[in-house]
Amino acid sequence: MMEKVLYGNPEIVELNEKELELALNEIIQGIEKIDLDAAKGMQARLDGKIKPVRSLGVLEDIAVQLAGVQRTANPEIKGKALLLMAGDHHVVEEGVSAAPQEVTAQLYYSYLSGGGGINVLTNHAGAKLICTNIGIACPLNPPELMANHIKSGADNIAKGPAMTREEALKALLTGAKRASETIESGVNILATGEVGIGNTTPSAALISVITGCSVEEATGSGTGLKNDALIRKHEIIKKAIKINNPDPNDAIDILAKVGGLEIAAIVGAILGAAKQGVPTILDGIISSAAALVAAKLNPLVIDYLITSHSSEEKGELVALKHMGLEPRLFMNMRLGEGTGAALMFPMVEAALKVADEMATFNTAGVTTGDF
Amino acid sequence: MMEKVLYGNPEIVELNEKELELALNEIIQGIEKIDLDAAKGMQARLDGKIKPVRSLGVLEDIAVQLAGVQRTANPEIKGKALLLMAGDHHVVEEGVSAAPQEVTAQLYYSYLSGGGGINVLTNHAGAKLICTNIGIACPLNPPELMANHIKSGADNIAKGPAMTREEALKALLTGAKRASETIESGVNILATGEVGIGNTTPSAALISVITGCSVEEATGSGTGLKNDALIRKHEIIKKAIKINNPDPNDAIDILAKVGGLEIAAIVGAILGAAKQGVPTILDGIISSAAALVAAKLNPLVIDYLITSHSSEEKGELVALKHMGLEPRLFMNMRLGEGTGAALMFPMVEAALKVADEMATFNTAGVTTGDF
Repeated sequence: MMEKVLYGNPEIVELNEKELELALNEIIQGIEKIDLDAAKGMQARLDGKIKPVRSLGVLEDIAVQLAGVQRTANPEIKGKALLLMAGDHHVVEEGVSAAPQEVTAQLYYSYLSGGGGINVLTNHAGAKLICTNIGIACPLNPPELMANHIKSGADNIAKGPAMTREEALKALLTGAKRASETIESGVNILATGEVGIGNTTPSAALISVITGCSVEEATGSGTGLKNDALIRKHEIIKKAIKINNPDPNDAIDILAKVGGLEIAAIVGAILGAAKQGVPTILDGIISSAAALVAAKLNPLVIDYLITSHSSEEKGELVALKHMGLEPRLFMNMRLGEGTGAALMFPMVEAALKVADEMATFNTAGVTTGDF
Repeated sequence: MMEKVLYGNPEIVELNEKELELALNEIIQGIEKIDLDAAKGMQARLDGKIKPVRSLGVLEDIAVQLAGVQRTANPEIKGKALLLMAGDHHVVEEGVSAAPQEVTAQLYYSYLSGGGGINVLTNHAGAKLICTNIGIACPLNPPELMANHIKSGADNIAKGPAMTREEALKALLTGAKRASETIESGVNILATGEVGIGNTTPSAALISVITGCSVEEATGSGTGLKNDALIRKHEIIKKAIKINNPDPNDAIDILAKVGGLEIAAIVGAILGAAKQGVPTILDGIISSAAALVAAKLNPLVIDYLITSHSSEEKGELVALKHMGLEPRLFMNMRLGEGTGAALMFPMVEAALKVADEMATFNTAGVTTGDF
């Protein structure tokens, strides 16, 4: 299922800042409110099935949502893909991660050779895995693996901004382009994933700035920080927010100052997918932080999001709650890569099969009533 | 995937009470403690994978559990089936259910013709669906559908015992036999499901008696009771416990007095599967109540149980907690039939694929460390 095609982003990296802002604006303005009539049509279909009304809960919610997103009471899944965005974070210099930076590139290679956790789970789900090196610190080989690369890691946010506004826009638009190309290849449901040692730190910073929660509420132990190291992580995140002082009303400013390259690419993928009427399954804290940024750019995008698991990183719940969302799978996972999102594909497919395959009261001779 | 074979239970219904007790005892005594060395072997395999230790959480727990249950560090899933047990409850005379009794048989026919919610979800999971009419109130046609039938509905527990001890044992042993026959057909993971209008009432009674929780804590709204009707349901359950006065130290006495036929069959299926080294995926409140009875008969059975969803019936959580278990899927479902359990099959398969297909630190060139 590994997608070998590498698209590259030459037309994005050559744009100047004004052109980049225009390109972003075009995506943001292109996102439509989901079709509530189609959603109602799906709920009516489900209400005719031989079961108490609404008794399939979240499966019904998802079927109704897909109807709204696809603008038809008969939505279908044509192809599934998980977009995995990879980028490094030089804030790891501050000791905020238990794993060394080299692991990002090593894991990225493992996905390309098919041995990562996310390979197993996307294969299991019958979904394509599309990996993008948007900002790994070291050069990768062969050179094609640099086709979408914006910068060699986000700068240390404890000392200054993660990236320039221009770099953030380029990473975002590259993510949108990857989503767009994937959708053109026949996929109509996306999931998000990432790899980037240190990326729970900028994610927590984004969540704290956008939701207004405390740094402590937004921060977990990442790949496995203990006690003092976790307190140190809190301090670094507070310092990053203080010295960068992002404009709370400017999502791109926040993203550029305390975010990261792969996070920006996920923001773009979410927005780009929504613009094309395609929903995105979120994974854990990193994609939830990205979703917060996307929703700040256009709140209509929230109706295109499908949640998956509650990761061990507690900031995820804060981010989801801020958007009125809840996780569905409680699997105590904290691997990242999109592994939680991949587990949600069978649930989404089950939701549509209920709508398509279950018998109705009309045909099955089952007594109807207020139950 | 519908299993058309009907086995029948003539050798069970001809046994006298003493022989029934001996048959039950043989199953209970035959359940072995799971193999902790095999479980450790699986955890060692998982710890070698390119991920932070234990970062796949519940997927790892399930892989480790299956290793213990199958007594090998390399467990595999050979075939999947969901055993759906059907029975009625004459306590519905007391107004404890929003749906009429006739719906049990109607839904049962819908499963046989392939249009039920559980048909859709077992097909989706690639699992066989094996339906057993253990105690539907009205006679079904063709007569083969009565092959495993013990009694035309559990008696009204608000007026006396649901069934005799002999009937409870026969229903239980029929469930064990169905599990056994299913396993012999090549299945090595089971899930439980049920249909039986009114069956959240005896389930709540069982949970209250066995865990010692209040009736209010064990009771939900079933297919959709509102306000006063829910208070009435509490009163009926309290009355049932009071007038039947089950012996708290005798699981079969509790089951016979305030349980039900399909619940007894699920108890038997869980025990029978465990005796043969096969795990069972629980569904919602009914199968959790049955699991409590099974665990009271032999606590070793708990290690053979895999939880699935948190149903809308809150008594389920009380029952699971009593056994040290937690649900994993939060889908707000309350259909029953085993629909929550069926959604867990892909998770269990994912767990073993992680163990079998993910690369190791040794082979993938990824830096190891305490993360």
